Amino acid sequence: MNNFNVLILGSSAAVPTTSRACSSQLVNCNNRYLLIDCGEGTQIQLRKFNAPFQRINHILISHLHGDHFYGLPGLLGTMSLLGRTSGIKIYGPPALLDILMVMFKASDTKLNFNFSFTALEMKTKDIVFEDDGMRISAFPLKHRIKTFGFQIEEKFQRYKINKQAILESKLTNEHFKLLTQGKDFQRLDGSWVKYVDYTLPMPTPRIYSYCSDTKPFPNQSGFLKGTSTLYHEATFLNDRKERAEQTFHSTAKDAALMALSCGARKLLLGHFSSRYVDTLGHTNEAQEIFKDVEAVKDGEIYEVK
Amino acid sequence: MNNFNVLILGSSAAVPTTSRACSSQLVNCNNRYLLIDCGEGTQIQLRKFNAPFQRINHILISHLHGDHFYGLPGLLGTMSLLGRTSGIKIYGPPALLDILMVMFKASDTKLNFNFSFTALEMKTKDIVFEDDGMRISAFPLKHRIKTFGFQIEEKFQRYKINKQAILESKLTNEHFKLLTQGKDFQRLDGSWVKYVDYTLPMPTPRIYSYCSDTKPFPNQSGFLKGTSTLYHEATFLNDRKERAEQTFHSTAKDAALMALSCGARKLLLGHFSSRYVDTLGHTNEAQEIFKDVEAVKDGEIYEVK
Repeated sequence: MNNFNVLILGSSAAVPTTSRACSSQLVNCNNRYLLIDCGEGTQIQLRKFNAPFQRINHILISHLHGDHFYGLPGLLGTMSLLGRTSGIKIYGPPALLDILMVMFKASDTKLNFNFSFTALEMKTKDIVFEDDGMRISAFPLKHRIKTFGFQIEEKFQRYKINKQAILESKLTNEHFKLLTQGKDFQRLDGSWVKYVDYTLPMPTPRIYSYCSDTKPFPNQSGFLKGTSTLYHEATFLNDRKERAEQTFHSTAKDAALMALSCGARKLLLGHFSSRYVDTLGHTNEAQEIFKDVEAVKDGEIYEVK
Repeated sequence: MNNFNVLILGSSAAVPTTSRACSSQLVNCNNRYLLIDCGEGTQIQLRKFNAPFQRINHILISHLHGDHFYGLPGLLGTMSLLGRTSGIKIYGPPALLDILMVMFKASDTKLNFNFSFTALEMKTKDIVFEDDGMRISAFPLKHRIKTFGFQIEEKFQRYKINKQAILESKLTNEHFKLLTQGKDFQRLDGSWVKYVDYTLPMPTPRIYSYCSDTKPFPNQSGFLKGTSTLYHEATFLNDRKERAEQTFHSTAKDAALMALSCGARKLLLGHFSSRYVDTLGHTNEAQEIFKDVEAVKDGEIYEVK
């Protein structure tokens, strides 16, 4: 079983509070560390929660409202000051690069590591990165400005050997290695050994999906197909549905309906308006529609189901 | 006696730690609130320390290294979101305005209040704002990029009446009012009453000076003339003087020598490199030269002596 979990660094909407920082979360997918959004104070939260921030190799920025990216220049600067030399991949709306450039120019900042920038422009779901352990996709959301959701999918590198293969004495260590890699091979007598006969089927990969900020929209469920755990913004409760629509946000009910319609196993609610002193109302509202719901807390780690 | 004090919001150099945020402080001079520098997380610190952040009417940014201004866009955005409508004056290096504009454009941010921007370009000390209760001056420092120091001087609006005037029965309330305003007047018999004869001399105004970041330089003491309380960066201890010179910073010893040479009554040390686990070394080093020294702590309020 791969490591696959999410550390919430910030879960407040728009304005930070004393208990919730602005949007940011650290995903560990198969020991690849991805930061999704980077509101002001993210570097402080990473430190507070003892997160391995120099191991972050991907930073995904959903959109350019300040509460989702104002912490990025400072985080990159600190990574550099603390000795980082390995490169980092940043993904976000095109203007993010202009902003970083004007800030770094004004401060005469020279990072000690390279970064690549992938400008998000897609109109449908698209893969933005893939290696042998995970796949990152992005897709458009519906917010007041250009905004993207993200999907992180785990991948399995090795097949597990089944019992039959272990009982088959003629297989060598070299053979086992080929089988776990999903490769067939010939015995000396010319007969073929097929990996499907000696290995267990790969488990269904888990998929973590992130939707913040957005109002619900018809294609959203399609983009989220296959999701195991859905993080969805729930800025408001449904009694403020009108306000949610005006500001292109979702309610806890909207989030639950989306979790139901995309077939997720678990729903994490976040991005709470600072008007709410607790999130019990959000959990209750969502649970009327979808059973496995948690309102996230800063500093907590959630396993991807 | 006017209110005149400084709330330290952040006192770390370059990189925030769990106990020290990036540079920022809130000065209350005669009930005018000024923010000096605004590192990442300043809005969170203001909230944490219950500071009246909607009463801030002046924001002074010393220079464009991220640890001194990355919190500004978020603070302005939050002020607006929380209902601010009254204007604010911002002072800083010219490129600060470009940065704010590119960030606000990308995020489609429209503030609900006006701000004026004063581009700092001076080569010597210059007044940037004055009203009947305080005066703000700025002057150039010597850092790796264009950097400014600030001086805040209190002003007194009213003379205090002396005992002789109180014993003089022929003075009316109207006369007392004129005297406290420093105005002479004629009695009905044609004789003059001069305010200097009936009032106490104005106390010497206190001056708070802020120097961060800078290496010591010949004209600095002249710019700081009249300082009562000096806040001076002390990024390093003197055993790292070479490193301080390379990076255009000061040591605790440099700060103490400057406090001595400008005739300050009190020295506040700040902007400590995160390499130091405590600041006892800084205080001791400075006290060998200058008696009244404090190494500041985030969240503490220091009276201007």
